[in-house]
Amino acid sequence: MVGRNKIPLARYLFTRLRQQGVQAIYGVPGDFTLKALDHVPPAGLKWIGTCNELNGGYAADGYARVHGLSAIMTTYGVGELSAINAIAGSFAEWVPVVSIVGTPQRRLQDGRKNVHHTLGNGRPRVFAAMARHVTVAQTNLVDESTAADEVDRVIATSLRESRPVYVEMPADMVGKEVDAARLDEKIDVAKGTVGNESEEEILREEVLDRIYNARQPLLLVDSGGGVRALRDEINAFVKTTGIPTMCMPSGNNMVDHSHANFYGVHSGPVGQIDTMPYVRDTDLVLAFGPMFSDTQTLSWKVVPKEHKIITLNRNTIHILGLNGGEVAEIDLSRFLKGLTEQFDRSRLTTPDVSSLGDFRTVQPPAYAKPDGVTLDDSIDQTSFYLRLSPYLRPHDTVILGNATPILGGRDLVLPPNAQIIASGQWFSIGHMFPLSMGVSLARQYQSQEGRPPGRTILLDGDGGFQVTAQELGTVIRYRIPMTIFLINNAGYAYERQIHGMHEDYNDLAPWRYTELARVFGATEAQLVGSKTSQNVRKGELYTVRNYTIRTWRDLENLLADEEFCEGKGLHFVDVRVGKFDVPEKFRVVFERAGEALGS
Amino acid sequence: MVGRNKIPLARYLFTRLRQQGVQAIYGVPGDFTLKALDHVPPAGLKWIGTCNELNGGYAADGYARVHGLSAIMTTYGVGELSAINAIAGSFAEWVPVVSIVGTPQRRLQDGRKNVHHTLGNGRPRVFAAMARHVTVAQTNLVDESTAADEVDRVIATSLRESRPVYVEMPADMVGKEVDAARLDEKIDVAKGTVGNESEEEILREEVLDRIYNARQPLLLVDSGGGVRALRDEINAFVKTTGIPTMCMPSGNNMVDHSHANFYGVHSGPVGQIDTMPYVRDTDLVLAFGPMFSDTQTLSWKVVPKEHKIITLNRNTIHILGLNGGEVAEIDLSRFLKGLTEQFDRSRLTTPDVSSLGDFRTVQPPAYAKPDGVTLDDSIDQTSFYLRLSPYLRPHDTVILGNATPILGGRDLVLPPNAQIIASGQWFSIGHMFPLSMGVSLARQYQSQEGRPPGRTILLDGDGGFQVTAQELGTVIRYRIPMTIFLINNAGYAYERQIHGMHEDYNDLAPWRYTELARVFGATEAQLVGSKTSQNVRKGELYTVRNYTIRTWRDLENLLADEEFCEGKGLHFVDVRVGKFDVPEKFRVVFERAGEALGS
Repeated sequence: MVGRNKIPLARYLFTRLRQQGVQAIYGVPGDFTLKALDHVPPAGLKWIGTCNELNGGYAADGYARVHGLSAIMTTYGVGELSAINAIAGSFAEWVPVVSIVGTPQRRLQDGRKNVHHTLGNGRPRVFAAMARHVTVAQTNLVDESTAADEVDRVIATSLRESRPVYVEMPADMVGKEVDAARLDEKIDVAKGTVGNESEEEILREEVLDRIYNARQPLLLVDSGGGVRALRDEINAFVKTTGIPTMCMPSGNNMVDHSHANFYGVHSGPVGQIDTMPYVRDTDLVLAFGPMFSDTQTLSWKVVPKEHKIITLNRNTIHILGLNGGEVAEIDLSRFLKGLTEQFDRSRLTTPDVSSLGDFRTVQPPAYAKPDGVTLDDSIDQTSFYLRLSPYLRPHDTVILGNATPILGGRDLVLPPNAQIIASGQWFSIGHMFPLSMGVSLARQYQSQEGRPPGRTILLDGDGGFQVTAQELGTVIRYRIPMTIFLINNAGYAYERQIHGMHEDYNDLAPWRYTELARVFGATEAQLVGSKTSQNVRKGELYTVRNYTIRTWRDLENLLADEEFCEGKGLHFVDVRVGKFDVPEKFRVVFERAGEALGS
Repeated sequence: MVGRNKIPLARYLFTRLRQQGVQAIYGVPGDFTLKALDHVPPAGLKWIGTCNELNGGYAADGYARVHGLSAIMTTYGVGELSAINAIAGSFAEWVPVVSIVGTPQRRLQDGRKNVHHTLGNGRPRVFAAMARHVTVAQTNLVDESTAADEVDRVIATSLRESRPVYVEMPADMVGKEVDAARLDEKIDVAKGTVGNESEEEILREEVLDRIYNARQPLLLVDSGGGVRALRDEINAFVKTTGIPTMCMPSGNNMVDHSHANFYGVHSGPVGQIDTMPYVRDTDLVLAFGPMFSDTQTLSWKVVPKEHKIITLNRNTIHILGLNGGEVAEIDLSRFLKGLTEQFDRSRLTTPDVSSLGDFRTVQPPAYAKPDGVTLDDSIDQTSFYLRLSPYLRPHDTVILGNATPILGGRDLVLPPNAQIIASGQWFSIGHMFPLSMGVSLARQYQSQEGRPPGRTILLDGDGGFQVTAQELGTVIRYRIPMTIFLINNAGYAYERQIHGMHEDYNDLAPWRYTELARVFGATEAQLVGSKTSQNVRKGELYTVRNYTIRTWRDLENLLADEEFCEGKGLHFVDVRVGKFDVPEKFRVVFERAGEALGS
């Protein structure tokens, strides 16, 4: 029995998550988590069971990218290790996920018993040692007198540092009583916040000074460094200052494309417009949360010179020549608000931006020979993505799979409040489909608060999709709306282009993708076109529609289909492209990557 | 160019594996592995591409359980972390797997560059630090002058210790030249072998003495501790000595059921015959590679008293009261051969084994009311497994999924040379289907050497199957023969029984399992029953057959179907059982497990 003003520990934990706006938790049940799961619904959370833990981790990652926090619960050893690649990805790309692990009863751990799901070597907490490498805070809830404090501490750390944290909850601790009154006080996220206002003021003046003195300043926005949570502050700064702004490919979710001073994605010479001449000539770059990994920088060739860059992360600023080259601690939210308020636009130089053109007006080739292609030509990825831009609507979230779409999809032109989600650091194949599940769910919950959910649109490759495909059953089971464009080229096209163009290790088993939804549990009634569905009133049903498109005409017909464009229910589009087809501009990227492997 | 008597490092590594009889390597291609993959076929190995790395790790685990060594190749970070749960499982259950990771070029690692698939924090070898927890030897092939030696060392360690090892191969090392002449000398597995013959002789006399003096000795055989490789030596010892012998559930692959002194699986009171009274009365137990985890010991209730046990692992022996309680190092193969040779059967007491009965004669209830069930009754798991025993044939390998089959399948009676594979320590859900893929492949290769491959028969649960289901496409792609009985109870039955009987977290998305093979790429010609298949000559085609069975009559008809029983191609049986159905004897096990979670 739980006493007055007492609450079971598991419920306390889940309630704390709910207070942070988390509405769903992902995972696979296991012996050591089962009793905790009983506390999920009473805390106001929904359990979303995924087919496996890696996929659950990816879904949680997606949920947190939209909402700002999420959670996954797995069982000890087997469960948590299955998910650890997703947790590492959240760490690498600055996504705050609370990874809760149900562990064996304390007496079994203390007695170093040979419990199943251990390595059998009497080292019960070896998995915690592994998790430490990819999480920013850890706690083992073995003491009911400190457990609630510990829960608050790790959640606050995850929020503050925008990275995953790790919680071990022994099965016998689930029901232990903790103080319920604590729940009346919100978690103090700022506790332990770095930086102080007076030092920040000095740094702020330095930054302003450098901006005013710059001949050709640039804002370069990415989604790393914990800045994802500061999208509004960054957009206010972009808008107020009028400084020319670009995104890194993985930062395309961070800036509203409607800002006049936004010039699209910085891909250098492989972009639709070559941004490199402008970037090369800049003398000051304010880089927000940059993830300058080789993959999205043409092997660092498009990264501005280091001495020109001021790096702004959620909790740090780095200005070369200041602080002896060390990073200084700041609260970027506060710092940026001050910067925006104090900004004097009259002191900003007006650089020549003519070389940047307007990415919004780039058009795909017209359907006309000999300049372009005819409607009956096969779809190719060189112009496929450009032709999708008009299909996009405000509030859409477009997710680019770690396959050719992450290249081709870079240059999509987004309507207001639409966003792109793409990897910038981790690039784990198969990540993006379960991630989309988390994104869509988070957007559905947001819509309860009045924000339109928009559509969740995934562009993925077939190789990536096969990694995590079984979650299509989960999507249907929980009636999660999603539109999937599967770029089907019968192989790992991205790898094929780097090396092994004709090798069978880059081939895939030939799936019948448009039949997957049915096999994974879509009912006859849900599958549009079946007899039963005619009898069901429109709107009530979660509908599932499959399409195969091969030619531009197929694509145009699809994009003219009102129900498809509405994006309700599940839409699965099998996009057949040639085995060797890639966005033309990127061929050189693959070649270079292949060459570099030997040196 | 590779010089005379020189060979590229990657080819050296793969050739060393081939020399150990490895014929296939598993994995998913990635940037940092691509160039290495070119060296797979020239070394005489076949690349088996799996849909994801976890599944590849499970397949490699299965292959090594049959063959004695296997390999998986994954890409840095994302790939290796996806597989790490499988590697940990191989560690926990003593399976020798060489985990090869393609890592970034040395100059990128040395320069701490922000390479994709890193955490972006300038710590390139953090994943190696994680792998160290679940592998027994590691090497980073950064120096061509020592690389070949290092390859030999880790392969030898894996073989000697029967556990996984970890190899980092930077992309720019793949083609580096090493001495080809080394390949003429076999890897010296014994190098560094523990124990010495004269000390072993003393220990052997001690063991013989204790056996001769025992009133009621027992051999208890499991598959841990590296003894899997010593199956022949153990069986010779079992046969020669005539000492009453039992297996732990996960050791059921270790002893031929035809030995007259073999009394089946030791499950204590939940077995078909209660072996506990006999075990309780034993005064000496020789335990081979025991994995006394809670799951297979009724929470240690059926484990013999510690002071009665002599524990024999591949490289160690532990005799209480000797060596100050420490383990002594031995070469169990040599030790056991000597023991068998020296054994004087006339000095063995003849214990009363009447309480052990004969597990081979246990019969399922007859099809007759009121004692039994009628043919039209629904299949239940209480007698399902017993009814499968007559279906088994010599050389079959039966794999028990980490679901209700691992309980019910314990008491299958195996014909000569047939084996069961079941988890004893790790019990990772989803493990067994990809494992079966590795098992079947290894058996096909063995058949080239004249040993009949037998059938590979998987009994799995639906929840487990969903974890790794996409590999059905891989099974079909590589034409791997397999028979799958899917125990379909629309949920995680094992978990449901422990806790949350009616909770939806124990439910699953309702898949149409018998349509999976088609969707995952089986052609119309392969799918038996289609028009095309009639035109294809029998025997040439890899055929795919799906079945749904609900009643005992369905089962009897299936087991009377000659083509089904032949087991060629893929046979997928959807076995519909009740949502709450479990093998009756085990209800108490679940209840206890559930109760224990709170204390």
